[in-house]
Amino acid sequence: MNLIDGNQIASQVLDELSERVASLENGKPSVVFVRVGNDPASISYVKKKQKTAESIGIDAGLKVFDESISEDQLIEEIDALNADSSIHGILVQAPLPRHINDVRVFNHVSPNKDVDGFNAVNLGKLCQEQAQAFRSCTPAGIVELIRRSNIETAGKRVVVLGRSLIVGKPIGMLLLNRAIPGNATVTFCHSRTHDLPSITREADILIAAIGKPQFVTAEMIKTGCAVIDVGINRIPDSSKKSGFRLVGDVDFEQVAPKTSHITPVPGGVGPMTVAMLMSNTVQAFEQANLVQ
Amino acid sequence: MNLIDGNQIASQVLDELSERVASLENGKPSVVFVRVGNDPASISYVKKKQKTAESIGIDAGLKVFDESISEDQLIEEIDALNADSSIHGILVQAPLPRHINDVRVFNHVSPNKDVDGFNAVNLGKLCQEQAQAFRSCTPAGIVELIRRSNIETAGKRVVVLGRSLIVGKPIGMLLLNRAIPGNATVTFCHSRTHDLPSITREADILIAAIGKPQFVTAEMIKTGCAVIDVGINRIPDSSKKSGFRLVGDVDFEQVAPKTSHITPVPGGVGPMTVAMLMSNTVQAFEQANLVQ
Repeated sequence: MNLIDGNQIASQVLDELSERVASLENGKPSVVFVRVGNDPASISYVKKKQKTAESIGIDAGLKVFDESISEDQLIEEIDALNADSSIHGILVQAPLPRHINDVRVFNHVSPNKDVDGFNAVNLGKLCQEQAQAFRSCTPAGIVELIRRSNIETAGKRVVVLGRSLIVGKPIGMLLLNRAIPGNATVTFCHSRTHDLPSITREADILIAAIGKPQFVTAEMIKTGCAVIDVGINRIPDSSKKSGFRLVGDVDFEQVAPKTSHITPVPGGVGPMTVAMLMSNTVQAFEQANLVQ
Repeated sequence: MNLIDGNQIASQVLDELSERVASLENGKPSVVFVRVGNDPASISYVKKKQKTAESIGIDAGLKVFDESISEDQLIEEIDALNADSSIHGILVQAPLPRHINDVRVFNHVSPNKDVDGFNAVNLGKLCQEQAQAFRSCTPAGIVELIRRSNIETAGKRVVVLGRSLIVGKPIGMLLLNRAIPGNATVTFCHSRTHDLPSITREADILIAAIGKPQFVTAEMIKTGCAVIDVGINRIPDSSKKSGFRLVGDVDFEQVAPKTSHITPVPGGVGPMTVAMLMSNTVQAFEQANLVQ
């Protein structure tokens, strides 16, 4: 079993980006984070992303709006950021309050500044295999983990657990595309799937993104499978000061010995999501300068 | 075995559309076909589409450009059609000459007039499960065949042979989405897939869209599978005056007795593609009038 060290790979990616940013001649990439309300997890994620951006020479702004902001007001604010040529990337931190249609908001972020890759244009271009599209950060991070761990994907069976817009669908599309990594035979499973274990056991690579703590057990995978665990779930743990600990969608202790490769939680996919956001921001800057 | 009669179902769809068009109060839907060059198959497809449009009360225009037109010139022509508010739908007939990047052209058709559903915005919205997106015509036609044949999809194994932008990817996404038909467990197979028969034999619904004549044989499916054959291939046939006949991607004679449902070629998916183009055109008209 090879443990895929997401922290170490993310740190390589960030080092490479840092050099790329330092060599840019037309200024500095700049990203703005849009946060609505005061969800503690969102506050902490955005802080982490800002800190990482600044550490590699990216300007990172923050716009905070009250939870009561209307959808139309939020869209007006995004239009203003779209129109500001000094801003290259815009990230609207999810989740948004319930009264706001998040997809409508994502689709209002300029496709050229959509470093989160949630805009319909970028999702569509990902299906079209257009290289200049922004790939959403978690799927792009998974592809990078697979690439840098030398896991073969061509002709392999990939099973994706989950069909979300943010992880399941785009990671499946990326690994289906004619690319390296890519060219996999991809199966999407979800809550309506019958006899799930019979399908997950066919996987050479299993990607778990369903948000159910320790859902994937050893009986559900075949020996030698590579397992990418996207879940981040809190479960009660009285031995911790906080009273909880983080676990993935995979029962790590039980599953890990059976795998060829596995990502831990935390320290697997999570750090890569942040690193790929930085990569998208640098790409946004470079593409904006090409156009000018 | 139930033969899915695409001609009959398409004719039902067209009758319904004809009534819908007759009841429109703000004018008539109008579609323009863009043809580049004189490919005989393209000429014949466009004629068929024009004739069907006119038969149900849709205005159908035609713009023909010389094969030597440059990509930029073609895009200028499309921009002019985009700007013309009397036109609700634009269809650029594929294939385009080799010197033209077809995806770039498709992405220049206004998403609101993209009745072919090939624009990145509509592909992305399909992934986002946005109901107002234009679904590309062949996948939308397959969904309609499945719906009107009462084939259950929820929780079923769907295997899609082919990963094209025009059929494979969108039909897989549509059947994966939270919809009726939909909620299927979807596997995408293609030229790089290993041990294909072991995968196709798992299918409750098999969708063949690879363009290889009579590729799917009886040994490749399980008894009771529903088979949708998207292929239209010419094979030599000395008994025909033309010297050829049309066959699908499925060896119909051999496979049909083992299936629960099967589409013939011709007379299966083909007529539905044309019918759904008409449905998209009426939708484009209705959405344009809503916006005004």
